[in-house]
Amino acid sequence: MNSIRAFAPATVANVACGFDIFGFAIEAPGDVVEIRKRDEPGVVITEITGDEGRLPRNAEKNAVTVVMLHLLKHLGIKDFGCEVVLHKNMPLGSGMGSSAASAVAGVVAMNELLGNPLTRQELLPFAMEGEKIASGSAHADNVGPSLLGGFVVIRSYNPLDIFTIPIPDDLYCTLVHPDIEINTKDARFILRNEVSLKNTIAQMGNVAGLVAGLMKSDYELIGRSMVDVIIEPVRSILIPEFKEVKKAAIANGALGCSISGSGPSMFALSKGKAHAEIAGLAMQQKFADVGIEASMHVSAINKNGATIL
Amino acid sequence: MNSIRAFAPATVANVACGFDIFGFAIEAPGDVVEIRKRDEPGVVITEITGDEGRLPRNAEKNAVTVVMLHLLKHLGIKDFGCEVVLHKNMPLGSGMGSSAASAVAGVVAMNELLGNPLTRQELLPFAMEGEKIASGSAHADNVGPSLLGGFVVIRSYNPLDIFTIPIPDDLYCTLVHPDIEINTKDARFILRNEVSLKNTIAQMGNVAGLVAGLMKSDYELIGRSMVDVIIEPVRSILIPEFKEVKKAAIANGALGCSISGSGPSMFALSKGKAHAEIAGLAMQQKFADVGIEASMHVSAINKNGATIL
Repeated sequence: MNSIRAFAPATVANVACGFDIFGFAIEAPGDVVEIRKRDEPGVVITEITGDEGRLPRNAEKNAVTVVMLHLLKHLGIKDFGCEVVLHKNMPLGSGMGSSAASAVAGVVAMNELLGNPLTRQELLPFAMEGEKIASGSAHADNVGPSLLGGFVVIRSYNPLDIFTIPIPDDLYCTLVHPDIEINTKDARFILRNEVSLKNTIAQMGNVAGLVAGLMKSDYELIGRSMVDVIIEPVRSILIPEFKEVKKAAIANGALGCSISGSGPSMFALSKGKAHAEIAGLAMQQKFADVGIEASMHVSAINKNGATIL
Repeated sequence: MNSIRAFAPATVANVACGFDIFGFAIEAPGDVVEIRKRDEPGVVITEITGDEGRLPRNAEKNAVTVVMLHLLKHLGIKDFGCEVVLHKNMPLGSGMGSSAASAVAGVVAMNELLGNPLTRQELLPFAMEGEKIASGSAHADNVGPSLLGGFVVIRSYNPLDIFTIPIPDDLYCTLVHPDIEINTKDARFILRNEVSLKNTIAQMGNVAGLVAGLMKSDYELIGRSMVDVIIEPVRSILIPEFKEVKKAAIANGALGCSISGSGPSMFALSKGKAHAEIAGLAMQQKFADVGIEASMHVSAINKNGATIL
């Protein structure tokens, strides 16, 4: 095999109550990475589309190639040469797991090209390292679901303990991205380092409720558990019309609605595709009311994660 | 029907990571309440056994009768007369849900005597009110499982949202009660009102892991998730030999071990009765090593909660 193309999907991290511990992938959009072997050693980026020229072209500074270099180093492979093309199919700094998708697509493509020396689970730390380049800290709530698919729970970061849980078949996600930008580092910076015990208990109750609701296919419980008393009250101030958009989603049939990752994208979960679409149109309209254009993606939960094309 | 006897089991609240949100009942021990109708109006306590004379005999001050008075008032029943006998079968202030068991047995017995006007779920607020008399605040993590049985999750206190989750059949609890006493109010008082965001995230990960582990019958995950970084480090200082006892439980096959409720009782969860017994003996021995007598109870998780005898 001399060339390979890999797809890695966008993801919704946090999922209301699960800051840093929950995430799931959607079907589309997703980034596509092409790798082509070449005789000359070294990993070089030959083209990036869809980023408006904003991502670094230096292979040692771009998440998509950093993961490849780490993987090659780990495997002790020297003198390997390849050209990399990255197709960005989602906006940067959108809360849709953009850098995670690039890192995952990159590491999955390289692993495939090398004959799959590592399992998907084993690729996770490499993908996390790649995302760190972009967001400043190594998290797994975007790379985990983009790599593995499904609804991902990160029980522990040290040691890394990550698993997926069963989810109801008819659960649909609406992802709405208003055309404004939030820097992930800023979104993390505004958070308080201390949480009241009362809010910690409330959040734990909702975490337990969301896991149980998903595993029991109890849509009502899923909806009641999509409550975030810790992060959302702080980060939502960075998103214009947040309250109105959330209210519109729920009034139009969504089970719940919150911030996707560190925003500004917002997501809703609904029972059935029709509800997801109706809720999404209502969310879009609320942004439009104040002159903000917003793109919308409706999708089932992606159970497979990254794929080779 | 002129008289009734009800049994309400001991309970383990918190279950390591789930402060105020998790609890489960065990098969035994449990409190027994007898109510006998009489012609003269008024609820009177005629006998209490097993409390060494420490509980109030005044019906308006004892959890077991307070719940009855609340229930009668709620139902608009006046001129009702009965005599109440309470058999305490567990020590007070033990972390075994002693006051909750009395309150639950009381309200279940009275409801039965009146022809079951309320469902079990509807009795919950009355039982919580009874426990408040004893512990100073209305919690549901003991009364919930004692009343309903099973592994109980309290998603929210306001509004009260409580449900049970499926658990593996072969899960056994070891409850070890060292002969020392901790006042529930004191145990709550020493807790900090603020939690670091880092610890909140770690605790949420374990809450998610424990719910998923129980629902998936993944014993390893149950064990890995029985980690409490918020409450146990503070409250364990009130329990002599805590670290040694916990270490002994796990070294002898338990999945995990922590404080039962506000202590001083400690509990362990194990796969299979044999492991639960071996772990319990090791725990008992560690207390014995420092001259503390400790009682031990090994039991499956009680799936039925309070019963009429």
